Amino acid sequence: MGWTLSTLAEKLGLRLQGDDCEVTGVNTLEAAGSGDISFLANAKYAKYLPLSKAAAVIVTEEHASSLPRALVSENPYLDFSRAVALFAKPQGSFSGISESAYIHPEAALEEGCTVYPFAYIGSRARIGKGCVIFPGCYVGEDCVLGQNCTLYPHAALMAGTVLGSGCVLQPGAVLGADGFGFIREKDRVQKIPQIGTVRIGNNVEIGACSAVDRAVLGVTSVGDETKLDNQVQLGHNVTMGKRCFIVSQVGISGSTKVGDDVTMAGQVGVAGHLTIGNGVTIGPKSGVAKDIPDGTTCGGTPAVEGRTYMRTLALMPKFPDMYKRLGQLEQELAELRALLEKDRS
Amino acid sequence: MGWTLSTLAEKLGLRLQGDDCEVTGVNTLEAAGSGDISFLANAKYAKYLPLSKAAAVIVTEEHASSLPRALVSENPYLDFSRAVALFAKPQGSFSGISESAYIHPEAALEEGCTVYPFAYIGSRARIGKGCVIFPGCYVGEDCVLGQNCTLYPHAALMAGTVLGSGCVLQPGAVLGADGFGFIREKDRVQKIPQIGTVRIGNNVEIGACSAVDRAVLGVTSVGDETKLDNQVQLGHNVTMGKRCFIVSQVGISGSTKVGDDVTMAGQVGVAGHLTIGNGVTIGPKSGVAKDIPDGTTCGGTPAVEGRTYMRTLALMPKFPDMYKRLGQLEQELAELRALLEKDRS
Amino acid sequence: MGWTLSTLAEKLGLRLQGDDCEVTGVNTLEAAGSGDISFLANAKYAKYLPLSKAAAVIVTEEHASSLPRALVSENPYLDFSRAVALFAKPQGSFSGISESAYIHPEAALEEGCTVYPFAYIGSRARIGKGCVIFPGCYVGEDCVLGQNCTLYPHAALMAGTVLGSGCVLQPGAVLGADGFGFIREKDRVQKIPQIGTVRIGNNVEIGACSAVDRAVLGVTSVGDETKLDNQVQLGHNVTMGKRCFIVSQVGISGSTKVGDDVTMAGQVGVAGHLTIGNGVTIGPKSGVAKDIPDGTTCGGTPAVEGRTYMRTLALMPKFPDMYKRLGQLEQELAELRALLEKDRS
Repeated sequence: MGWTLSTLAEKLGLRLQGDDCEVTGVNTLEAAGSGDISFLANAKYAKYLPLSKAAAVIVTEEHASSLPRALVSENPYLDFSRAVALFAKPQGSFSGISESAYIHPEAALEEGCTVYPFAYIGSRARIGKGCVIFPGCYVGEDCVLGQNCTLYPHAALMAGTVLGSGCVLQPGAVLGADGFGFIREKDRVQKIPQIGTVRIGNNVEIGACSAVDRAVLGVTSVGDETKLDNQVQLGHNVTMGKRCFIVSQVGISGSTKVGDDVTMAGQVGVAGHLTIGNGVTIGPKSGVAKDIPDGTTCGGTPAVEGRTYMRTLALMPKFPDMYKRLGQLEQELAELRALLEKDRS
Repeated sequence: MGWTLSTLAEKLGLRLQGDDCEVTGVNTLEAAGSGDISFLANAKYAKYLPLSKAAAVIVTEEHASSLPRALVSENPYLDFSRAVALFAKPQGSFSGISESAYIHPEAALEEGCTVYPFAYIGSRARIGKGCVIFPGCYVGEDCVLGQNCTLYPHAALMAGTVLGSGCVLQPGAVLGADGFGFIREKDRVQKIPQIGTVRIGNNVEIGACSAVDRAVLGVTSVGDETKLDNQVQLGHNVTMGKRCFIVSQVGISGSTKVGDDVTMAGQVGVAGHLTIGNGVTIGPKSGVAKDIPDGTTCGGTPAVEGRTYMRTLALMPKFPDMYKRLGQLEQELAELRALLEKDRS
Repeated sequence: MGWTLSTLAEKLGLRLQGDDCEVTGVNTLEAAGSGDISFLANAKYAKYLPLSKAAAVIVTEEHASSLPRALVSENPYLDFSRAVALFAKPQGSFSGISESAYIHPEAALEEGCTVYPFAYIGSRARIGKGCVIFPGCYVGEDCVLGQNCTLYPHAALMAGTVLGSGCVLQPGAVLGADGFGFIREKDRVQKIPQIGTVRIGNNVEIGACSAVDRAVLGVTSVGDETKLDNQVQLGHNVTMGKRCFIVSQVGISGSTKVGDDVTMAGQVGVAGHLTIGNGVTIGPKSGVAKDIPDGTTCGGTPAVEGRTYMRTLALMPKFPDMYKRLGQLEQELAELRALLEKDRS
C-alpha cells in the first residue's frame, strides 16, 4: 500500500518540503530504502541524515533545510508514529464469523465482527461493532466488549469481564481469573470465592500473558488509555487510573489504588492496600511498600525519592569498600585513643 | 439465588441475632445493599457498622449487640468466606461433553464430566468424576485427573501429569513443560531430555500463566492444599509441601525442596538445590540463596532473618547519607591525628 | 523400548566394561532399578555408587573399576544426556493433519507434518518438513517454520514470525506480540504501531508463557541454539546472540543487544538500548543498567563485577550493624576531639 508524500503531508497536517513522490513504507534512517519515509526524533542520530536513502524524512524545521525532501513537524516522533499507523495493516487472515467458532445462542454480536475458528463466546456475552476475536479466545458468560476491540489468540475473559471500546488484548492475556484469596486452617485451606469482576476502560492494551484478577467483591478496574506490557499481574480489587504505562513483569498486589498518568518500569513490585498518586514514576525493579504522593519520581527497595535512589544506585558498588573503611576507621580511632590516653596518663 | 438468614446461620453453624429475612448476596460494609450480608473482620472498619445498609453482618459477639441483625462468629473472616461460597456460582456456560472437543478413543472419562468445545484429551488420559474442562485445554497422554478438578481455558497438562482431586487450574496454567536442562558444547547446545513428570496433590490451585516444569528424571511435586498465584514458576524436580501460599511472580529453581505451610510473597526468587523448612515465611522480592530452617521469617537479598531484614529496609534510604558520613569521619579522624601528632612532636 | 548395553555403548561412542545386558530406562543412582542405567557426574555422589541397583553406570575411568558394569566416559553428564535422548519418546497422541485444524488455503505445509485439532495456520504461512503443531497453536500469516519444529499447545506466532529448524516452543509461548510503544499526549495515548517482525534461529527453545515482541521497525532476533526458560520477556528490537541461556522470569528491554554464549540467571532485568558482550554471565535477580563488556561475570543492582557482587551479598546482612557502628564512631570521635581540645586549651 502506497501514498504520495503530498497526501501523507495532508493527512498528518505537516508541511512537505521538496517535490512529491510515492512512498510505500516507513523505516529507520539507516534501514530506509528509496521508497520509505523515515524520521529524526533524537538529535544524536542527525549524522545519519545525509547518508539516508529515505525518500523523505520527518524532521523539525531546524533539520529540514539540509534535506531534498522533508515532512516538517514540531514533534517528529509523534508524527512518525502517526505515519506508521497509516502504513500498518491489521494482523489476520480471516473475516466473518467462523462456523468453527462456538457462539452461545444467548450471546449477541453487533455488526462487523470477526470471529475466528476455535473462539468461544459464552452465554449473554455482548460483543460491540467491529470486534476481532482471534482463534482460541475465550469470552465467558456476561462479558461485555465495546466497539472495535481486538482479542489476539488465546486471550481469556472470564465471566462478567467488561471491556470499553478500542481495547487490545495481546496473546494469552487473562482477565478475570480468580484473585488469590485463601485462609489457612489447621490441616486445610479455605478458598475465598472471588465473586467480583474486572472492568477495563477504553483504548486499554493488555500485554501477552498478563493477568488482571477478578475482585473478591466489587471490581478490579483499569482506566482509559492505560497500557500494560507483557507478563504484568494486577491482583484482585486493584484500581488503576488512566494513561498509565506499566512495563513488563510488574506485579501489583490486591486492593492497591494507582492514580492517573503513572509509569512503572519493568519488574516493579507494589504491595497491597497502597495508594500510588497521580503522575508517579517508579524506577525498574523497585519494591514499593508505602503510599506514594502525587508527582513523585522514586525507585529502589524500599522505593525512595528519585535522587536518593540514583545516588544509592551509584554508591552501591562501593558497599564492600565502605565496610572495609568502617573497620579501618574503628581501628585507627582505637589507636588514636590509646595514644591520647597514654599521653594523658 | 437467595437464602433466609436462619438457613444461612444453620449452614454456617452461627447464632442468628435478630429477626429472619431473605438475603441474596454478600458485599463489603460500605457497598452492601439491604439484601446483602456483610462482615467485620478488622476492628478498624467498625466505624462503618452503624452506616452499613447490610441486612445482617457476620461479627464477633463483641460487636453483635449494637446491630439489629447479626450472625455471631468466632472467626468472621473465615465465616464470611464460607458464606461467599454459598452465594458463589461456578463459572461457565456449557454442560456435557462437546462434540467439538477432541477426546482420544483411549481416554477414559468418569461420569459427570463437562468438556467444552476445543478441549483436547489425549490417549490413556483418565479424567475423574465431575471434572470441568474449559475450551482450549490440553490434557496430554497418560495424564490422570482426580475428581472435581476445574481446568479453566487454555490450561495445559503435558504428558503424564497427575492431579489429585479438587484442583483448580486458572487460565493458561502450564503443567509439565520441559524443565530447563541444557549443556553447552563448543558450537552447539545439547538438550537434556526431560523424561520425568509432574504430580499435584489434592485441592491445589495453580494461577494464570503459572508453570510447573516436568522433572528431568523422577517427579516435580506440589503437596495437598498448596496454592500458587499467577505467573509463578517451579523448576524441574522441585518438591513443594502442603498448604503453601506462593504469591505471584515467584520463581523457584530446580530441585529445591519446600516444606509445608510455607508462604512466599510476590516476586521472590529461590535458587536451586535448596531446602526451605516447614512454616517458613519469605518477604516480597527476596532472593534466597541458602537453606532456610523451619519456622523462619526472612526477607531481602540475600534473605536474612526477619528483624535484620526489616531493619535493612528501614535503613536503606540512609545509604547515601552513610557514605557521606563515612567520608567525613575519615577526614575528621585524619585532622585529629594530625593535631595529636603535632602536639606530640 | 530397550537397548542392549553394547548397542548403547556403540551409539554413544563409549567403552563398555562388564558383560552385556538389556536396559530399558535411565534414572538417578538412588532411584535406578536393575533395568536402568545411571550416571555419576559429581564426585560427591560417589558414595551412592556401591549402593545403586543400576544395571550400569556412566562414569569416568577413575570410578569404573569399582563397578561390575560401566560405560566409561570423559564427560559423564553429557553422555548421560545423550543416553536419555535415546530413551525419551516424543510427546503426543496424534499424527497426520487433523480435519479439525484450520489451515488457510494459501498456507503451505511440507511433508511429514503433524497438525493437531484446533491449530490455526494463516495465509501464506510456510511450514517445514516434519513440524509438529499441537492443539490451539496459532501460526499467523506469512510465518515461516524451518524443518522439525515443535510447537506445544497454545504457542502463538504472530504474523511474519520466522523460525529456523529444530525449534521448540513450550506451551503458551508468544512470538511477535506487539512491542510496548506508546506516546502520552495530553488526555490520550498514541500507539506506535509495531510493524517489524521476529526472527528466531535454528534449534532455539522458548519456554512456557515466554514472550518475544515484534520489532517496531525491522526485526527482533534470537540466535541459533539459544534457550529461553519460562516467562521470559524480550522487548521489541532486542538482538540476542547464539547459545545464550536465559533463565526463567528474565526481562530484557527494547533494542538491547545481547552477545553469544551469554547466561542470565533467573529474574534478571536488563534496561533498553544496552550492549551485553559475548560470554557474559549475570547473577540472579540482577538489574543491569549499563553496557557489559565481553567475558564479564557480574551481578547485583546495579550489576557489578562478580567479586564485588559476591562480597556485597556476603556483607549486606551486616548493613544494620554497619549503620550502628557508624553512629558509634561519630560519637567516639567527638568525645576524643573534646578530650584533645580540653587538653590543648
